[in-house]
Amino acid sequence: MNTRAVGNILGKVLLAEAALLLLPLITAALYGESVLPFIYTIALLLSAGGCLNALKPGTAELFAREGFVCVGLSWVLMSIFGALPFVFSGDIPSYIDALFETISGFTTTGASILNNPELLSRGCMFWRLFTHWIGGMGVLVFIAAILPISGDHYIHIMRAEVPGPTVSKLVPRVRKTARILYLIYLGLTLLECILLLLGRMSFFDALTHSFATAGTGGFSTRAESIGAYHSSYIEMVIAVFMLLFGCNFNLFYLILLGQSAEAARSEELRAYLGVIAASVAVIAVNIAGLCGGALSALRYSFFQVMTVLSTTGFSTCDFDSWPELSRWILVLLMFIGGCAGSTGGGMKVSRIVILMKSYAAELKRMIHPTRVKRIWFEDRAVSEQTVRSVHVFFFVYLLATGLGVLILTLDGKDLSTNLTASIACISNVGPGLSAVGPTGNYAFFSVLSKLTLCFEMLLGRLEIFPMLFLLTPSVWKKR
Amino acid sequence: MNTRAVGNILGKVLLAEAALLLLPLITAALYGESVLPFIYTIALLLSAGGCLNALKPGTAELFAREGFVCVGLSWVLMSIFGALPFVFSGDIPSYIDALFETISGFTTTGASILNNPELLSRGCMFWRLFTHWIGGMGVLVFIAAILPISGDHYIHIMRAEVPGPTVSKLVPRVRKTARILYLIYLGLTLLECILLLLGRMSFFDALTHSFATAGTGGFSTRAESIGAYHSSYIEMVIAVFMLLFGCNFNLFYLILLGQSAEAARSEELRAYLGVIAASVAVIAVNIAGLCGGALSALRYSFFQVMTVLSTTGFSTCDFDSWPELSRWILVLLMFIGGCAGSTGGGMKVSRIVILMKSYAAELKRMIHPTRVKRIWFEDRAVSEQTVRSVHVFFFVYLLATGLGVLILTLDGKDLSTNLTASIACISNVGPGLSAVGPTGNYAFFSVLSKLTLCFEMLLGRLEIFPMLFLLTPSVWKKR
Repeated sequence: MNTRAVGNILGKVLLAEAALLLLPLITAALYGESVLPFIYTIALLLSAGGCLNALKPGTAELFAREGFVCVGLSWVLMSIFGALPFVFSGDIPSYIDALFETISGFTTTGASILNNPELLSRGCMFWRLFTHWIGGMGVLVFIAAILPISGDHYIHIMRAEVPGPTVSKLVPRVRKTARILYLIYLGLTLLECILLLLGRMSFFDALTHSFATAGTGGFSTRAESIGAYHSSYIEMVIAVFMLLFGCNFNLFYLILLGQSAEAARSEELRAYLGVIAASVAVIAVNIAGLCGGALSALRYSFFQVMTVLSTTGFSTCDFDSWPELSRWILVLLMFIGGCAGSTGGGMKVSRIVILMKSYAAELKRMIHPTRVKRIWFEDRAVSEQTVRSVHVFFFVYLLATGLGVLILTLDGKDLSTNLTASIACISNVGPGLSAVGPTGNYAFFSVLSKLTLCFEMLLGRLEIFPMLFLLTPSVWKKR
Repeated sequence: MNTRAVGNILGKVLLAEAALLLLPLITAALYGESVLPFIYTIALLLSAGGCLNALKPGTAELFAREGFVCVGLSWVLMSIFGALPFVFSGDIPSYIDALFETISGFTTTGASILNNPELLSRGCMFWRLFTHWIGGMGVLVFIAAILPISGDHYIHIMRAEVPGPTVSKLVPRVRKTARILYLIYLGLTLLECILLLLGRMSFFDALTHSFATAGTGGFSTRAESIGAYHSSYIEMVIAVFMLLFGCNFNLFYLILLGQSAEAARSEELRAYLGVIAASVAVIAVNIAGLCGGALSALRYSFFQVMTVLSTTGFSTCDFDSWPELSRWILVLLMFIGGCAGSTGGGMKVSRIVILMKSYAAELKRMIHPTRVKRIWFEDRAVSEQTVRSVHVFFFVYLLATGLGVLILTLDGKDLSTNLTASIACISNVGPGLSAVGPTGNYAFFSVLSKLTLCFEMLLGRLEIFPMLFLLTPSVWKKR
C-alpha cells in the first residue's frame, strides 16, 4: 500500500470539499442565516486536508487496489465531515442522522430521516441537495478535472468511481476526459434549471432540484417532493432530465461530436429505452382506473418509472398505494438502475444485458457443446474477465441486499419495508415501499440499521469493491 | 433431435409410472375403496407408453440436449398423467388443482391446494405422498436402475435429473451407480419408517411420511403436518432424516465403503452443517421468549431449519408468526437448499460455496492482478466452465423467481405472500410466509398463477435448463 500517495489524494479531496462548502456558506449569508456551521466545518476540513495534502508521496504510482482504497476512504471521509453543518446548525441534532442524510446525499440515494425537509435552514437545504450534484459525477473525477494530476495511474481512481462494468476513456488523457464529463454535466444541469425557471419555479428550488436530478439523487426542498408543484410541465421536464441523466455520458459526447447516429446504435441505450417503454405501458394500464384517465395514468407512470429506474427517487404521488403488479415492477426496476457511465445507481442496464447474453450463450453451449460462444456487446467481444466480474457483482449485490435485510429485521418492521429499504439504499433510489414508501422516511430505524443502510448506500454507489476493499485485511499489507 | 430415441425413453417412463401406480391401487383395495381411478389411469399410461415404447430408435445415441429434453418432457408427461387419479376419484375435482398437487408431489415441493388433506381417500393419499418418493431420486434414475439400458449416453439423462453443479458417477457404469443410489434411498426410507413405527405412528402414516421425508417433499396425511403428533421423538426422527436426505448421497456410499473419514472431509457437508448450526442457534435465541424455554426453542428451531433448508416443508408450529429475523433467515435458507446429489431443492449448498469462493477469488484478482487464481472445491480445481454455469444458474434462478412474482401479483395478494410463494415453489420447499404460510395453502391463486408456480416447481427440481430447453426453438431442429 502506497500510504503516502493515498493520503495525499485524500487531502486533496478534503480541500475540495472545503471549497465546495463555500456555496452553501454564501447561500446562508444571502438568506441572513448564520454562516458559522459552514465556517467551522471548512476550518476542520482545511486542517485535516492540509495535513494529509502535505504528505509527499515517494512515488506517485498507484496500483488498482490503491485506487479502490482511495475512492472508498474518500467517500467515507467526505461524508464524516459533510455531516457536520447539519449538526452545527442544529438542523439535524443527531450526528448519526446527519451522517445518514449526508451519505444518502453524496451517494445520490435520497433516503431521508427528515419528517419535514421544509424546516431546514436555506444554507443546509442547499448543501443537502448540492451533495447530490457532487456525488453524482464523483469528487475524484472533479479533482481530476481541475487539478494537474500527473500520470495515467489516475485511471484506476476513475475506474473505481465511475459506474459500469468497464470504463472507457473518451479521449486518451484522463484529465481531459474528466473535464469533458463535468462540462456535459454542468451544461445539462443549467439547461434543466432554465427550463424549470420557465415553469415558474423559484430560483432556489429550480437550482437545487436541478442538482438533485443531475445526480439522480431525489432529495427535495418540499415535503411532498415534486408533487408539491402540481405542474405537469415541471413533472415532464424533470422526468425527461431523469431519463437523460440515466444515460451513459459517452453518448452525449458522441452527440457533441456530431455522431448522433452512432450514439443511437448503442445497445445499452436501446435496452434502457425498451425497459422504460414496457414498464410505463404496463403500469399505465394497471393504474388507469385509479388515476381517472389514460393521459393522467401515463403521466404518473412515466414520472414514476423514470424516478425509480434512474434511481432518483422523486415522487409525484403515493405509488405505495398502487396495485401489487405496479409495485413489484418498480422493485425490479430498482435493481436494474441507470446505464453505465451515468449518474444513476442500481446494477446498471449494461450489466443486465451482459447477464442475459451470458445466459443465452450458456444455453447455446449446452445445445452445441463444441461451438465456441463469445458474448458481443456494443459491437465488441466482451472478455471472459468482464463477464465473470459482472456475475460476481450480481452475486455480491444480492448477497449484500439479503444480509442487509437480516439486520433491518431486528427493528421489527414488516418484510416489505425491510426488503425495499435494503434494495432502495443499495440501488441508491431512496424511497421504497410500506414504511419507507414515498410518504414515509427512514427516521424510525435504529442506529445499527441506519449504519447498515449507510454502508449499503456506499456499497451501491461505488459498486461494491472499493468498500469491501476497506474491510479486507490483505489489502492493507505493504507491497 | 433424435426424436425416436427420445420417444422411446418417454414410453419407458410412462410404463414405469403405470407400474408404480400399482402400489396406490393395492392400498385402495386394502382399504376397500374403489380401484377404478387407478385402473383407468394405468390403462391410459399403458396405451400411451406402449405406443411410444414401440418407437425403434435408429441410433440409441443421445447428445446432451436430447438428455435435457428427455428429462423435461418426462416430468411434464408424468405429471399430466399422475394427476388423473385425483380427478377420477373426485378427491380433487379441478384438473388444474390436481396437476398442481401432482407437480408439487413429483418435484418434492409439498405446496398444496388442499384445505384439509385428511379428507382424501387412502389410495389417493398414498399416491400423493408416494409421488414425493418417486420424484426425490428421479424416475429416469429409477429406469436406469432397473432396465438394461445400453450405452453410456444415459449419463446425460442422469446429469439432467440429479441435482448439483456437476455429476459424479460413483462407479464407472451408469446402471450400477443408479442402483446404488436407489438402494441407499430405499434403505434410509425403511430405517426411518421403522423408527417412526417405534414412536407409535400408524404403519400408513409412518410409511407415507417416510416417503415424504426421503424425497424432501413435505406433504403430510395430517392437516397440522408433523405438529399433529405432539411427539418430540417423532419430530426429532424426522428432523434428523431431513438432515440426512439433504446430504449428498455419495457420502453415504463412501460410508458404506468404510471411508467415513473421507466423507467427513467433504467441504459441502461442512458448509451444510455450519449453516444448520448457525441458523438453529440464532433462531432459537430469537424465539426463546415465545416458546417457553431454551430447550423448546431449540426443538422448534432445529425442526424448522431442517424442514426449510432440506426444502421438505413439514411444520410443527406456525413459523409465520415468528419474529421478522427468524422469518427472513428461513427465506434465505429456502434459496440455499440441500446439498448437490441429495433429494433436496434450492440452489444447493455447493453452488453457494462456489459462488462465495468465486467472489473471494475476484477480490484477490483485483488486489494482485498478475497472479492466477483458481477455485478449489472438494480438493479439486473447479473448471472455468463449472464456475460460469453456476453463475448463470444463480442469475436465471433469481430472474425466474422475480418474473414469477410478477404474474402472482395479478391476484392482488401482498408482497410477502407473492415473493415467498415464488421462492418456496422454485426451491421446492412448499410453505412460504403470510397467506402461503404453514397454516395457509395455495388454493386461492388463479389458474394462471397456479400454472406459473407449476412451471417454477419443475424449473427448480430439474435445475432450470431441461425446462428452458423445452421452450427454446433451436433445440427442436433436426441435427
